[in-house]
Amino acid sequence: MGYSLDDMLAKFRPMTAAGRVAGYIPELSKANPDNLGVAICHHDGRAETCGEAGFKFTMQSVSKPFALALALMDNGPESVFSRIGMEPTGDSFNSLMKLETFSSLKPVNPLVNAGAIATTALIKGHSPAVKYERLLRFIQDLAPGCHVGFNEQVYKSECLTGDRNRAIAYFLRDIKAIDGEAEECLDLYFRQCSIEVDCVTLAHLGRSLASMGVGRCSIPPAYARIIRTFMFTCGMYDASGEFAIKVGIPAKSGVSGAIMGVVPNRLGIGVYGPALDPKGNSVAGVALLQELSQLDAWPVL
Amino acid sequence: MGYSLDDMLAKFRPMTAAGRVAGYIPELSKANPDNLGVAICHHDGRAETCGEAGFKFTMQSVSKPFALALALMDNGPESVFSRIGMEPTGDSFNSLMKLETFSSLKPVNPLVNAGAIATTALIKGHSPAVKYERLLRFIQDLAPGCHVGFNEQVYKSECLTGDRNRAIAYFLRDIKAIDGEAEECLDLYFRQCSIEVDCVTLAHLGRSLASMGVGRCSIPPAYARIIRTFMFTCGMYDASGEFAIKVGIPAKSGVSGAIMGVVPNRLGIGVYGPALDPKGNSVAGVALLQELSQLDAWPVL
Amino acid sequence: MGYSLDDMLAKFRPMTAAGRVAGYIPELSKANPDNLGVAICHHDGRAETCGEAGFKFTMQSVSKPFALALALMDNGPESVFSRIGMEPTGDSFNSLMKLETFSSLKPVNPLVNAGAIATTALIKGHSPAVKYERLLRFIQDLAPGCHVGFNEQVYKSECLTGDRNRAIAYFLRDIKAIDGEAEECLDLYFRQCSIEVDCVTLAHLGRSLASMGVGRCSIPPAYARIIRTFMFTCGMYDASGEFAIKVGIPAKSGVSGAIMGVVPNRLGIGVYGPALDPKGNSVAGVALLQELSQLDAWPVL
Amino acid sequence: MGYSLDDMLAKFRPMTAAGRVAGYIPELSKANPDNLGVAICHHDGRAETCGEAGFKFTMQSVSKPFALALALMDNGPESVFSRIGMEPTGDSFNSLMKLETFSSLKPVNPLVNAGAIATTALIKGHSPAVKYERLLRFIQDLAPGCHVGFNEQVYKSECLTGDRNRAIAYFLRDIKAIDGEAEECLDLYFRQCSIEVDCVTLAHLGRSLASMGVGRCSIPPAYARIIRTFMFTCGMYDASGEFAIKVGIPAKSGVSGAIMGVVPNRLGIGVYGPALDPKGNSVAGVALLQELSQLDAWPVL
Repeated sequence: MGYSLDDMLAKFRPMTAAGRVAGYIPELSKANPDNLGVAICHHDGRAETCGEAGFKFTMQSVSKPFALALALMDNGPESVFSRIGMEPTGDSFNSLMKLETFSSLKPVNPLVNAGAIATTALIKGHSPAVKYERLLRFIQDLAPGCHVGFNEQVYKSECLTGDRNRAIAYFLRDIKAIDGEAEECLDLYFRQCSIEVDCVTLAHLGRSLASMGVGRCSIPPAYARIIRTFMFTCGMYDASGEFAIKVGIPAKSGVSGAIMGVVPNRLGIGVYGPALDPKGNSVAGVALLQELSQLDAWPVL
Repeated sequence: MGYSLDDMLAKFRPMTAAGRVAGYIPELSKANPDNLGVAICHHDGRAETCGEAGFKFTMQSVSKPFALALALMDNGPESVFSRIGMEPTGDSFNSLMKLETFSSLKPVNPLVNAGAIATTALIKGHSPAVKYERLLRFIQDLAPGCHVGFNEQVYKSECLTGDRNRAIAYFLRDIKAIDGEAEECLDLYFRQCSIEVDCVTLAHLGRSLASMGVGRCSIPPAYARIIRTFMFTCGMYDASGEFAIKVGIPAKSGVSGAIMGVVPNRLGIGVYGPALDPKGNSVAGVALLQELSQLDAWPVL
Repeated sequence: MGYSLDDMLAKFRPMTAAGRVAGYIPELSKANPDNLGVAICHHDGRAETCGEAGFKFTMQSVSKPFALALALMDNGPESVFSRIGMEPTGDSFNSLMKLETFSSLKPVNPLVNAGAIATTALIKGHSPAVKYERLLRFIQDLAPGCHVGFNEQVYKSECLTGDRNRAIAYFLRDIKAIDGEAEECLDLYFRQCSIEVDCVTLAHLGRSLASMGVGRCSIPPAYARIIRTFMFTCGMYDASGEFAIKVGIPAKSGVSGAIMGVVPNRLGIGVYGPALDPKGNSVAGVALLQELSQLDAWPVL
Repeated sequence: MGYSLDDMLAKFRPMTAAGRVAGYIPELSKANPDNLGVAICHHDGRAETCGEAGFKFTMQSVSKPFALALALMDNGPESVFSRIGMEPTGDSFNSLMKLETFSSLKPVNPLVNAGAIATTALIKGHSPAVKYERLLRFIQDLAPGCHVGFNEQVYKSECLTGDRNRAIAYFLRDIKAIDGEAEECLDLYFRQCSIEVDCVTLAHLGRSLASMGVGRCSIPPAYARIIRTFMFTCGMYDASGEFAIKVGIPAKSGVSGAIMGVVPNRLGIGVYGPALDPKGNSVAGVALLQELSQLDAWPVL
């Protein structure tokens, strides 16, 4: 490895000053914008960490790939993709426009909010509580020994302020893109966003998507490839294309400042930096990943 | 008057076969598509009726002008139009697109669903029940002695199937276009849509907007002109422009098959014909109004 | 009449400071933003003028109602409206969006640029020169004795800088909304925009649309009513709805600072004030018309 | 290799019956829908062919990656991406909507028509003829010894019927996304679309993008990676996301029925099958690539 994580962190931490902590949920706005942490989990399970790698934060949109994994394992790809599209979109992550102009009457892909809510609705279980338990356990099993908790305050914040997501969920009901109750589906969605992890957990979760089959309930390789592909084309909000050009690996970001990256067959990476750029991605995290990608020859495309 | 309402009705009733009864609410789909009724209320209070003029139906979108009247009387135009725009739109009545692309972050006008829900949210009252009572009483007072009831079945249907309107209401909350609880606001909106009238009531209500000041709580002439103007530019869904060209009077339609027309300073008119054209307007009702407008020289523009 | 034009002009001229002269064509940007002129032509032909009423300017979009009149007289309404829609739109005047999302594949109405170009394409003539001659003569005949010229510099400016209009014209060709050569059609469109008038001409032209049948080739009353209706619903760009509420008369504005108003059966009005508001309408002109409308009881709706 | 190209072709040729030859250009509509050809060029230069692999066709959109390569080599990535975005889009390839709603006033990516025209405008040369010569020579040098010609009839067809592309080019001029004359830029764009190749040429061109540096003017590896990434996220029109999931390699299609694929560090592939699916991709070609990808383990993501 031709780099030192410590040096990298020292180089990119000043960039956090250029970003802003997410303000749309009161709980998230309390984060310290200076924080920057990184963890790498190699194919052999060996982990490196640096900076605030043990700092806890909520998964937010980083939970979407795992809800998709469980939905695929519960229903199979054919059923999932009869309800949710596969196309990237240059629109904002919380846009409803494509729902209205798209002739196919389904959300464009599983990583924008509309598609993610429709994906979550496909997770099986006799009750909302069972569904959430299954998803939480699934994520815990993919990162054994790592911190996977639940942030009650963030969850309550999401419930109170999630009007745009409510609008999306009811729109999805209207076009019959989801079957169940909108509020039940939203509750599960807000819960999955509020699952709490740290960089080490994220790195292990990223490794679980790198197709090296670890953990009790590892994700089938064919599904892991589907998920990596969505992360590559749509994982970084409406900066996904730019990230694919500049960094060149499958990744998923969340408004908490989390980024989970996957280098296929090699490693998983977790970054935490709550100071965000205008598109909602960790400003220092993206820069750090760009440099790591070049130094360590990550892009496989 | 150079026409006979009986002859007109006989001429246009066969056109009902070209339309379809609204199917999106179970209760509405039970209407008899052959029905066609008309009532005219002249400036002196004299009324003419013909066909199924006494048949009862729910106001649906025809309630919007009266919610606007009450909101104007409660808040004044400046306050109302700081929250709701004045522009017509060629988009569908239940579109959310303008909410997302419009820079001003307010619904385009008070007669599309988004604007109508935001308008209803401005009606004053200490509780939802009080607000509804005020609106119902207001409408009753504008049409004294006429049937103004409430259709519980339709109301329940609206509540159960109103997912698109819920999506709109939560979107409005998200962009801060409404202040209160979305569900409370929707409940009042669904109630106002379920107010039950007949053609005679509609004709009297139309006359109340013709600026001849009748009833205990008549609408101030300046507000009546505002409402007539919105009816002229946006009253007939996305066929408003065509209706303005072909018929040339302020009018408002509802998916129950209702049309309320206003000939300023002369008369109000109520039409009921539940067989709708693809844009949601009574197919025979529009044709009948077009002929009446020509025969009786209605257009003043 | 309860007002003095001189007093009105003195009152509203300071508002010109709040506007900006159109910058998109070099020739237009040379206008003096302080200018404000008004002319009224009453039903009996009597004219009043005030301020820079004799100042010459190009018609720009004020030419659209007359291209529509000639297209209607050449083809009849059925043919015209098989190619061009009747619906107002909240989109910007030079938007292509509705062309792409509208299922009907025709421009939404004859007063947005897309519809106006398609309207101009319907004017008959063996050659582009003949078509232009017919339109110019038509306008001259509607305002006999008034200044109706041609501004060569503005025309050349339009040709050089009309890329958005070229985009629209080629889009119209692509969806088969116009038949002829795009460049020929654009040339006629740029020429009609460059016809030069003054406030007095505009007032006479407005009177010609008030359905009082003057001039050698007066507009048939049924067509004049169609045109007044479009002016009412779509004449003031994406402030048409607000103008209808606040002023309440059919009117058409142009980026030169021109506004032509029509009070049906009573009078025509011409205003010139090149300082524009952000939507492209004369800022002092609109305010002046709003006050005149109230003082002289113009709204008939 | 666990497959026989002959068997594959026999298996997938019947699928051509499910597609339709492109009709929008007269010349293209003359293609034989039954045709299906494939060529693979391995990293060592060894080529396999099968079916109508020697049949000639025009590159159409398959030319876009090479115009991008030359624009990158002429201007550097920073300059190119100051004018053209990097984001995929779920909109149709010839959509103008993003141009109007995108705040950044640049085309979303170099592979939709708007971005491709803006890319072509960045190719350097003292005259249009020189620019075209440079692009043609560039492509010839990337596939030495292969057929690289020019189809005059298709070029003339493109010029005559390219109204949508003209609309795009003038829109780009209007938002200052291109500097030169729209017609000159379009002429070069129509020429590049009319360059004639066969499957063997495409396979060699694909290999030139696989970063194995062959040919006199090979594409710098960093630029080849950029191009492969765009092909992966946006290469197959608005089915790019689905293709990435199902086939998993960078590819670019054209309405002539061409598909060029790249397996990084391994091979290039050329497919010709003029029977297209509704999104404009070769129906049998896509199916054949999906099976080849699975059998030969192509996906690297």
